[in-house]
Amino acid sequence: MISAVDVIRTKRDGGELSRAQIDWVIDAYTKGEVADEQMSALAMAILLNGAADREVADWTAAMIASGERLDLSDVGRPTVDKHSTGGVGDKITLPLAPLVASFGVAVPQLSGRGLGHTGGTLDKLESIPGWRANLSNQEFIARLSDPGCVVCAAGDDLAPADRKLYALRDVTGTVESIPLIASSIMSKKIAEGTESLVLDVKVGSGAFMKNPDDARQLASTMVRLGAAHGVRCTAFLTDMDTPLGRTAGNALEVAESLEVLAGGGPSDVVELTVTLAREMLSLAGQPDADPSAALADGRAMDTWRAMIAAQGGDPDAKLPAAPETEEVCAETDGVITRLDAMSVGLAAWRLGAGRARKSDPVSAAAGVEILATVGDRVNAGQPLLRLHADDASTFEAARASLEDAWDIGSTAPDRRLILDTIR
Amino acid sequence: MISAVDVIRTKRDGGELSRAQIDWVIDAYTKGEVADEQMSALAMAILLNGAADREVADWTAAMIASGERLDLSDVGRPTVDKHSTGGVGDKITLPLAPLVASFGVAVPQLSGRGLGHTGGTLDKLESIPGWRANLSNQEFIARLSDPGCVVCAAGDDLAPADRKLYALRDVTGTVESIPLIASSIMSKKIAEGTESLVLDVKVGSGAFMKNPDDARQLASTMVRLGAAHGVRCTAFLTDMDTPLGRTAGNALEVAESLEVLAGGGPSDVVELTVTLAREMLSLAGQPDADPSAALADGRAMDTWRAMIAAQGGDPDAKLPAAPETEEVCAETDGVITRLDAMSVGLAAWRLGAGRARKSDPVSAAAGVEILATVGDRVNAGQPLLRLHADDASTFEAARASLEDAWDIGSTAPDRRLILDTIR
Repeated sequence: MISAVDVIRTKRDGGELSRAQIDWVIDAYTKGEVADEQMSALAMAILLNGAADREVADWTAAMIASGERLDLSDVGRPTVDKHSTGGVGDKITLPLAPLVASFGVAVPQLSGRGLGHTGGTLDKLESIPGWRANLSNQEFIARLSDPGCVVCAAGDDLAPADRKLYALRDVTGTVESIPLIASSIMSKKIAEGTESLVLDVKVGSGAFMKNPDDARQLASTMVRLGAAHGVRCTAFLTDMDTPLGRTAGNALEVAESLEVLAGGGPSDVVELTVTLAREMLSLAGQPDADPSAALADGRAMDTWRAMIAAQGGDPDAKLPAAPETEEVCAETDGVITRLDAMSVGLAAWRLGAGRARKSDPVSAAAGVEILATVGDRVNAGQPLLRLHADDASTFEAARASLEDAWDIGSTAPDRRLILDTIR
Repeated sequence: MISAVDVIRTKRDGGELSRAQIDWVIDAYTKGEVADEQMSALAMAILLNGAADREVADWTAAMIASGERLDLSDVGRPTVDKHSTGGVGDKITLPLAPLVASFGVAVPQLSGRGLGHTGGTLDKLESIPGWRANLSNQEFIARLSDPGCVVCAAGDDLAPADRKLYALRDVTGTVESIPLIASSIMSKKIAEGTESLVLDVKVGSGAFMKNPDDARQLASTMVRLGAAHGVRCTAFLTDMDTPLGRTAGNALEVAESLEVLAGGGPSDVVELTVTLAREMLSLAGQPDADPSAALADGRAMDTWRAMIAAQGGDPDAKLPAAPETEEVCAETDGVITRLDAMSVGLAAWRLGAGRARKSDPVSAAAGVEILATVGDRVNAGQPLLRLHADDASTFEAARASLEDAWDIGSTAPDRRLILDTIR
């Protein structure tokens, strides 16, 4: 007979958990028969003693088995999804999903809300009047046939063990475990039913992974997990020392995404969108597709409008604008050599764009507009950032988080956006 | 501001917890502001990453500060206590407390109940008709003046953080941490108010510590903790591969203790009782006292009778006897070269002498009588053990735990009872 204490002891003492132990503990935890205090002790033992590939694969399988695995075989199109580990100004899903879908590929995006300094895709889309995040499984599958992409909240039946475990890890200092992060992400993506998946693993000050080695380890663990479950995966390691694009905030990022869909937009956002789209299309059987063309000729924008409308949103509605703005200016002449993603993310969060607790509301209009970024020449007194808020009293705290946010010098380093590709 | 997650992360990442962090987390945990799942994650991090001497001393101080520290200055005698980490057949407290008290020294023994294969002193004494374990603090102090020794249950106000944490560690696989074991034992003993303390750290199959290195580390940690709080301590490492004496069970062990108090009893029980008594008396200012004489001339027995009577017990009452007995016999001729303490402890437990859960009742009469032990010559068919039970249906399970309990050969190894002394 398996007991919680025996499972904890096995991992605590450096052993490998058997498939039977893992299946039992995840099932019993989901049912409430293994207590939170037992699971948190096990999570800490996994964090400190690690887990073998086989254990991570079994753990992920058990998390998937705690709920339903969606069957997308009726969609009638190849399916491919993208997941980002989260960064500041990372609105890529917004232009990417309709762009890829405009090639006849289905993009099933079950997404989350933001917590802390990185925003959530659902929060961003909810700044569009009328748009709703909650769909039934039938609606979800119907949207994948037409218009071909859907971004919505994961249902309660999708890897419920992960939902419970993630909330526990958040309050017990056990988030930072690569095996647990990898199985958390992959259990949801595999349960979602996608055939292939592109992973955007962020590295740098504004990312969860601060150094490339950890990011590479997480990326390759996830790629192997996908393969073990029959999901074709490619992971990119991408820079998150500098915010992505020129905005961090909900409606602000939607507006920037619309620029990209209209064939414009900041070059880094365009580069990453096109790179990820090309890989997704390649995994879906279209290695020669040209995503840039679909941004230029309006096909991606048409699919966006259909996607927003299909979930009750008005693609022509005016986005919420903040009643209060304030500019932060350069103190000297020169070239911006550094703009710290974490500082900008914290500022946006303090302005109201993000939440500290799951139950907190977010402001649609609040955020940071980046008027000058790395490589731009500025003069003393010229505005670098524009802060947007519903409440002017948040400016002081936002400014405090920006105190050491940039350097001005003579020459900016070249920025490498795509650091590595792992297949 | 200190948060639970920050404290957990500090220890998880190999750092040292500050005094402020430790005080905060123990206080908040006692009040229920730090959740069980947070404390268990912290306990696992301490178990795996260890704790510096300073941290263990601070942790112990915080556990003491969670309740009251008794003031024994009105007792009018020097005070000295003994603590054993628990073993099979370890009834030493029973003859030892009155023996030491018979020299005019006060022995304040706040004791516990048994859990698992090792018995609890309170369970043993409760097999004496009328004897009660619960005393008020005033009664406790009064008994230390006359008759000079008292064995009773610890009150709820003594290191309440330890009580809560111990129950948590029991179900989360975090018992086996030397810093946590040491601080648990010492916080209760220091809060009890004793001036000096002798520790009997058991080593071997029937003990919690299976190897001498761990036992030595635990012993020296406890001795240093005592010194840090002004309590003079000596620790002995003693053998627990073989059961102590000839009985394991509640009333059976009381009967054996009475033999020792009457000047007889098994040689190992006498040797350990006298060794611990001599050290306790030495710490209490009587280095030349002769404990053997007090066993021989009845002084220790007189104090025993007074101690039992003072807590409502009848020292002349007949002890409960088991209605069912069964003998286990030698299969060959020879000398017993090994008798496994753990197997005998498990057998006694399965016969009803111990409990699996805190709320389980124990049988006063159940247990194992050891008719032949290591070094004894036996013939095939000769009884080695006599099993005592209230219910004959327990014999089968008890026999199963005795399957590999002994070896019979040609020469028995010399038994070293006292393995080391740490001051």
